[in-house]
Amino acid sequence: MTTSRDSVDTITDQEAAALDAHWRAANYLSAGQIYLMANPLLAEPLHAEQIKPRLLGHWGTSPGLNLVYTHLNRIIKNRSQDVLCIWGPGHGGPAVLANSWLEGTYTETYPDVTRDTEGMERLFRQFSFPGGVPSHVAPETPGSIHEGGELGYSLAHAYGAALDNPALLVACVIGDGEAETGPLAASWHSNKFLDPVHDGAVLPILHLNGYKIANPTVLARIPEDELDQLMRGLGYEPLHVGGDDPVTVHRAMAAAMDTAVDKIRAVQHAARHGGEHRRARWPVIVLRTPKGWTGPVEVDGLPVEGTWRAHQVPLPAVRENPAHLAQLEEWLRSYRPEDLFDPTGRPTEQVLACVPEGERRLGATPYANGGRMLRTLPVPALEPYAVPVDKPGRTQHEPTRVLGGMLERVMADTAQRRDFRLFGPDETASNRLQAVYGASGKAWQEQMLPTDEHLARDGRVMEILSEHTCQGWLEGYLLTGRHGLFSCYEAFVHIVDSMVNQHVKWLHTSRQLPWRAPIASLNYLLTSHVWRQDHNGFSHQDPGFVDHILNKSPEVVRVYLPPDANTLLSIADHVLRSRDYVNVVVAGKQPCFDWLSMDQARAHCARGVGIWEWAGTENGDREPDVVLACAGDVPTQEVLAAADLLRRHLPNLVFRVVNVVDLTRLMPATEHPHGMPDVEFDAVFTTSRPVIFAYHGYPWLIHRLAYRRAVHPHLHVRGYKESGTTTTPFDMVVRNDLDRYRLVMDVIDRVPRLGARAATTREAMADARSRHHEWIREHGDDLPEVANWTWSS
Amino acid sequence: MTTSRDSVDTITDQEAAALDAHWRAANYLSAGQIYLMANPLLAEPLHAEQIKPRLLGHWGTSPGLNLVYTHLNRIIKNRSQDVLCIWGPGHGGPAVLANSWLEGTYTETYPDVTRDTEGMERLFRQFSFPGGVPSHVAPETPGSIHEGGELGYSLAHAYGAALDNPALLVACVIGDGEAETGPLAASWHSNKFLDPVHDGAVLPILHLNGYKIANPTVLARIPEDELDQLMRGLGYEPLHVGGDDPVTVHRAMAAAMDTAVDKIRAVQHAARHGGEHRRARWPVIVLRTPKGWTGPVEVDGLPVEGTWRAHQVPLPAVRENPAHLAQLEEWLRSYRPEDLFDPTGRPTEQVLACVPEGERRLGATPYANGGRMLRTLPVPALEPYAVPVDKPGRTQHEPTRVLGGMLERVMADTAQRRDFRLFGPDETASNRLQAVYGASGKAWQEQMLPTDEHLARDGRVMEILSEHTCQGWLEGYLLTGRHGLFSCYEAFVHIVDSMVNQHVKWLHTSRQLPWRAPIASLNYLLTSHVWRQDHNGFSHQDPGFVDHILNKSPEVVRVYLPPDANTLLSIADHVLRSRDYVNVVVAGKQPCFDWLSMDQARAHCARGVGIWEWAGTENGDREPDVVLACAGDVPTQEVLAAADLLRRHLPNLVFRVVNVVDLTRLMPATEHPHGMPDVEFDAVFTTSRPVIFAYHGYPWLIHRLAYRRAVHPHLHVRGYKESGTTTTPFDMVVRNDLDRYRLVMDVIDRVPRLGARAATTREAMADARSRHHEWIREHGDDLPEVANWTWSS
Repeated sequence: MTTSRDSVDTITDQEAAALDAHWRAANYLSAGQIYLMANPLLAEPLHAEQIKPRLLGHWGTSPGLNLVYTHLNRIIKNRSQDVLCIWGPGHGGPAVLANSWLEGTYTETYPDVTRDTEGMERLFRQFSFPGGVPSHVAPETPGSIHEGGELGYSLAHAYGAALDNPALLVACVIGDGEAETGPLAASWHSNKFLDPVHDGAVLPILHLNGYKIANPTVLARIPEDELDQLMRGLGYEPLHVGGDDPVTVHRAMAAAMDTAVDKIRAVQHAARHGGEHRRARWPVIVLRTPKGWTGPVEVDGLPVEGTWRAHQVPLPAVRENPAHLAQLEEWLRSYRPEDLFDPTGRPTEQVLACVPEGERRLGATPYANGGRMLRTLPVPALEPYAVPVDKPGRTQHEPTRVLGGMLERVMADTAQRRDFRLFGPDETASNRLQAVYGASGKAWQEQMLPTDEHLARDGRVMEILSEHTCQGWLEGYLLTGRHGLFSCYEAFVHIVDSMVNQHVKWLHTSRQLPWRAPIASLNYLLTSHVWRQDHNGFSHQDPGFVDHILNKSPEVVRVYLPPDANTLLSIADHVLRSRDYVNVVVAGKQPCFDWLSMDQARAHCARGVGIWEWAGTENGDREPDVVLACAGDVPTQEVLAAADLLRRHLPNLVFRVVNVVDLTRLMPATEHPHGMPDVEFDAVFTTSRPVIFAYHGYPWLIHRLAYRRAVHPHLHVRGYKESGTTTTPFDMVVRNDLDRYRLVMDVIDRVPRLGARAATTREAMADARSRHHEWIREHGDDLPEVANWTWSS
Repeated sequence: MTTSRDSVDTITDQEAAALDAHWRAANYLSAGQIYLMANPLLAEPLHAEQIKPRLLGHWGTSPGLNLVYTHLNRIIKNRSQDVLCIWGPGHGGPAVLANSWLEGTYTETYPDVTRDTEGMERLFRQFSFPGGVPSHVAPETPGSIHEGGELGYSLAHAYGAALDNPALLVACVIGDGEAETGPLAASWHSNKFLDPVHDGAVLPILHLNGYKIANPTVLARIPEDELDQLMRGLGYEPLHVGGDDPVTVHRAMAAAMDTAVDKIRAVQHAARHGGEHRRARWPVIVLRTPKGWTGPVEVDGLPVEGTWRAHQVPLPAVRENPAHLAQLEEWLRSYRPEDLFDPTGRPTEQVLACVPEGERRLGATPYANGGRMLRTLPVPALEPYAVPVDKPGRTQHEPTRVLGGMLERVMADTAQRRDFRLFGPDETASNRLQAVYGASGKAWQEQMLPTDEHLARDGRVMEILSEHTCQGWLEGYLLTGRHGLFSCYEAFVHIVDSMVNQHVKWLHTSRQLPWRAPIASLNYLLTSHVWRQDHNGFSHQDPGFVDHILNKSPEVVRVYLPPDANTLLSIADHVLRSRDYVNVVVAGKQPCFDWLSMDQARAHCARGVGIWEWAGTENGDREPDVVLACAGDVPTQEVLAAADLLRRHLPNLVFRVVNVVDLTRLMPATEHPHGMPDVEFDAVFTTSRPVIFAYHGYPWLIHRLAYRRAVHPHLHVRGYKESGTTTTPFDMVVRNDLDRYRLVMDVIDRVPRLGARAATTREAMADARSRHHEWIREHGDDLPEVANWTWSS
């Protein structure tokens, strides 16, 4: 164990004793939650039947979290500082719950858990208990925006929370286990994007307790000077605190906290009032304390405190083993609960001396219940940005570029409020949203060169080549009550699959908590999609994020595939206004036919699925022979090209064209709030006609959504079936049997009694497909009849 | 641009000129691939029709990759050093292809692309051309094990390749874009796990060309001393090379390469012969050269060389714009092709002077075609590890612990060969595989303390709290011809969704290349699964990786859900012997009933799906009234408990129990090689009886796999539907309607004419469910009748 440095006598003995009392109380309550379901104050000797039957929870990290909570309290109170804390080791739920109960916010949130003996018993019993509260920091935990179970995202969340919150200090405890993850390792560099003028500060507290579940941690074992260099190389000014003597550590920690806050305020003052433009070297606290500190030193002859054995439940057999029971009682009594709580179970004045008041308390800060601070986003009228469409399929636009115009307006209209940001891994321009630079630059605090474009210290477009960091920033930004959009290459959004799982779970739970106000939805714009990876090929082709997201809570997830520019505008308008969802919007950046006027687009998007009468050949007197359905921009184009061919080659065929914008409309109404009732579904898709469905992604997803529908046995889906390379756009659809010629052949193969003309047409289609193959291998480009096709009717 | 340091005159003028000639030739060939489809040697003035119609590819990174390739050639040749290179910026495909053609390996691999004018034209034309080769480094590229399109995994791949290859030096080019990603940032710490005695060396070459697609990069813009500190803090010894004058850079690069190799050899000598035990400070080369170096300085009045505008195609309109055409010709001629290639198109002696011979050439190294070096893994006979099972459901074992015994044997039997490793994010013991420590420790090069257990400098169990790093190491290890297993918490394997996408794509393509020998499969053991997150709860519950993997190429992906210990052994035996697959095995670590003897397990796993006659009530004279199907250990337990209840309560019911181990057996035979023909499927599941299917994961997956089967309208699936928290094991299945009582009710609800007894039984089941609710809320544990249940027949 290192001895502490930076130890200055900034606190009196009395203050040190009070801080220690608060810390001991929190440690006592943490251990109590893991073990006890009765006798919370140890008013009588401990009995086996007072112990929970199943001992679940994580002790190891809790004393460290309690130390940080105690010292943040001190800083908040002494300096009237707004603080939000991200608890990276969120599995240390007992610690955060203990502190919330001590400061009173737990009882204010959950009045039945009173701040007395009875409430303490409830606090203990409910922890990791059926019908109680989860073992981790969770949406149920007052003051939290971060679950911390998966590990990796704490620091990105912290930076996201700090953006555009100039008065806020976001403390962020990073466990040395979490520090080994990729997302965490990348997010240290967020300091290159934090504007000391318009943003708040982040104070990382790297907590080295030395061990993960079963292993030493890397950062706790490298030489201290190497760790110091690492922190400096990442652009931080490290303050080292460490030890295992509580009083020494309290003094050192108080000093480090004071130094850190002084330094932060100095940086902010220099930037805000002194015209300082160099990127700041923000402080980081490196805190080294034993894992399971103050817990059992040895159990059954093996060392526990200060080792990985303290990770979860240090005494595992308390109910069965009287020696363990005795050791637990000794451990709990070592905190001297009788000095910490009065006979009614209320914390003593000394314990509460460091606790701040009102909304400054960590468990009460409105920053951790962002919906309370959320303002309606000024989404503009869409008409000025809409594309004029007199007739479908006559003109082409790049949908994301059109959207860029609208987003520029949103960015401009939030210039003063600063509550909207755009996030993307170096792809805003590649994804053709660059109009936004007209209203805001890209955030950048490092050196700028004359050749650079659109960089700005106060920019609100966030670009770093890390999907993890972008996602983490955005989540932190939304959870603290702001708005945003993440634009991403479709294939690489899988990089954040696991992060979005956690965010959906967070929303799923917090929607059920009346005290949590709704927050702005997490909006994805997935572009540079599977069908147009002209520069990149196979590695950039994966439309499966939609499949991934549709496994998650239907109350939370939404998926949209607007087929053209105006529908993209309408969908964007909707998702930017929505709350508590994860919206996935898939749209192309390449020139795409304009099918619908703005009014038509709005009506179509409101329905989510619709019959495009103008594209079919029905005249109302009978059911169509076949339904051609499509979802996604490229499939829509191919279906309409197939419709063109069908009208020319098979004029007697009666077919219907259906476009699906909102994919969850296909699901049963019982499975998703947007799901169509059967009667509605059947009216659109029929119950017995062949349905040829051209889908943007993996075809079996459509079956998975529609398998309960009457028409399902007649549903035939085309989509991406993992066949790709660097090739032409039309060759991509041919390789995957999604092309117009194949769709026509599909119709012929499934509609009976089409006669001789059908056979000729089928041959013509097969012939066009083979001509395509020859042509592109010779010319390196698509057939002219395909490249120059426009909708003819 | 920084001036170069470390510049020592280690090379003569003549050698510098030769290195420069090789580099210019590679640059010429790189640009040629992007632009030309005829006139490859510029024997005549360039015409528009000689330019490709679609200009696709990435120029920006290519000159830097060419520089590295040239200087690696020098080192390989001068020092007779085995080198494998990982090209992190794999989008620079033209560079690697150019060098492979120059050294002759391209022609040896693809004889029609000859090393002459005709072959050069083919090389140019085929690049990013339909029917040709991808624009990125890809499986088709000789000498590569790394696609590099997604970015983030180069350094982990490099370390994985170096493990247990003591003679190998793995060079790894890391782009400054890639360096911003999380996985890359984490993987620097791999140096804490590399054993200088038994492993080879990794030489990272951090290439700072200053820009990503559209932005400056973080590491290129932070102060140089900060970058130096960062590298040192990560435990490396940086060697800085930089500049834009080729001759100066050649000299500096040659000197840095020499210094690096000397340093590496000194480290290895000290460890291998001098007893040195401290963790080595390996060298890293920090190479700073302009993006698009030697390309167009300005285009249309805007700076290109040295900026992000050089990222892809610096002159975009060559076919249409005569000024661009002229500028291209000038650019290409600036390399003086007439000095680099003889009139037949063959590279001159000077160009080839640095090129090594035979298998030492980077494009010919067997390390990059690992299947050629692969030896059969010594998988032991299973009987010594198998659990004795006389009757089903009488005993319990922890399946992963049983597997651990078998893996210990594999680990012991490869102690000399060192070609098997186990990978996991700090979870080997948590996942109960700790028996392997009997045969090998956990790799660790940092300080060791007396309290540590199982750490070893030469350990082959790899544990770091980064799923990304584990996955990257394993991929690199497998691709260089070794064997391995990744054990991971089920929920958090989503962290590597995107990585496994890329690995499946790699295998999909390389299986089609006759010159690529099959490699060992990538094997996942997913445990600590959704149903048993007793300590953690909702955030740790996600069974969707199976859904993710089943979207990928059916030739490559396999999914197994062994229901007990012996079936897990049998499946492990199979996957460890297999080639070119990604095998996902989902199995519990908690005590689980033993259902099958080793012989029965082997037969059952060979079929992948089977009727468990002993569990049903058929007597052979008619079809069953209902089929109870299950996949996964917990669903199997619940189905058999339901079977018990049904036998007692409804003795006249004829039901069949089917267990599915190999999930892809459910797919149509046309969709997956393991898919059952309809006749076989129908024989197992019937065509018209109700099928109650209890599945481990999201229930709709079973519909997605089985929707084409005759029985599908009668298929009713129970599974995890995203309802979870910290609670008891049985409460988890109740919350998700997968419990025995619900399954019995499902049967009653779907089988007609069961009579009055059915109604009574249904009530009894509903009653048991509500008693459960009351019981756990009071006792915090499961109903005794559930917790103590064993199979009765």
